[in-house]
Amino acid sequence: MSTPLSMEWTLITGGKEKRVNPDENLFEITFEGYKLFPMNETIEIKRNIRADQIGSGEIKELLLKDNTTICKYRLISLHSVN
Amino acid sequence: MSTPLSMEWTLITGGKEKRVNPDENLFEITFEGYKLFPMNETIEIKRNIRADQIGSGEIKELLLKDNTTICKYRLISLHSVN
Amino acid sequence: MSTPLSMEWTLITGGKEKRVNPDENLFEITFEGYKLFPMNETIEIKRNIRADQIGSGEIKELLLKDNTTICKYRLISLHSVN
Amino acid sequence: MSTPLSMEWTLITGGKEKRVNPDENLFEITFEGYKLFPMNETIEIKRNIRADQIGSGEIKELLLKDNTTICKYRLISLHSVN
Repeated sequence: MSTPLSMEWTLITGGKEKRVNPDENLFEITFEGYKLFPMNETIEIKRNIRADQIGSGEIKELLLKDNTTICKYRLISLHSVN
Repeated sequence: MSTPLSMEWTLITGGKEKRVNPDENLFEITFEGYKLFPMNETIEIKRNIRADQIGSGEIKELLLKDNTTICKYRLISLHSVN
Repeated sequence: MSTPLSMEWTLITGGKEKRVNPDENLFEITFEGYKLFPMNETIEIKRNIRADQIGSGEIKELLLKDNTTICKYRLISLHSVN
Repeated sequence: MSTPLSMEWTLITGGKEKRVNPDENLFEITFEGYKLFPMNETIEIKRNIRADQIGSGEIKELLLKDNTTICKYRLISLHSVN
């Protein structure tokens, strides 16, 4: 009678994101476990926890199922790397 | 800069459940706002907050999106009413 | 940037509860990690996860600090064992 | 049969913070309702939702009780205003 979950404030992609066609800026990532993110708010996106920020986005959907979380987010801006 | 949600532990259907075909015992309800339920645990199902329990079920999926929660649950047992 | 926690619906004491004097029916338990319970609602109390219910109570306070949760609850009824 | 709460990731003080003596940098604020913040992570502090950031801090304690949240946080840095 216990449901573990984690509250997240930064989206760490781990390079696992997939573009959701045909919307160019909508991506999907599947995480292990149940995760909650701020919904429809601008949050930081990073490739990994120690990496610099790679952009910002908004979480549009969270699907909690079978101990996984399928997260859809819109990429809002990319930090340019020169 | 804040995401409201509520922790629930009884499923109050309000009579709004829809059967998800072709699985006879899988139902779907859309709630306003973001709601979290115990996942894959047996919980009580009631028609409304003051009603007697009508059965028990397990939450299988929660989809959080656009300030609604689409909840899929499996009906496990019905309380018989004689 | 991630805070793990778990949602709980049953209070599993593990025999670690301490009475909070001078209130006879108020108890305190310290849990590892962050836990959320239904607040001010009647929930089941068990000694361990496989044990029978030993009573019911209401969570009055949750203190989240240093990766522990100090939970104060009021014992409402004890199941008599004859 | 439901516990509402909100996930927060910016601390909006509303000017209601009180210094917790004798620790110069520890403050306490009481919020209405149950709120969860990232624990022991650096977050932004603002005076109100539309204001500029006034500093950064870390949430050290959350006490959930009687439909209020008493939040203790450490002020880590102040944005200088020249």
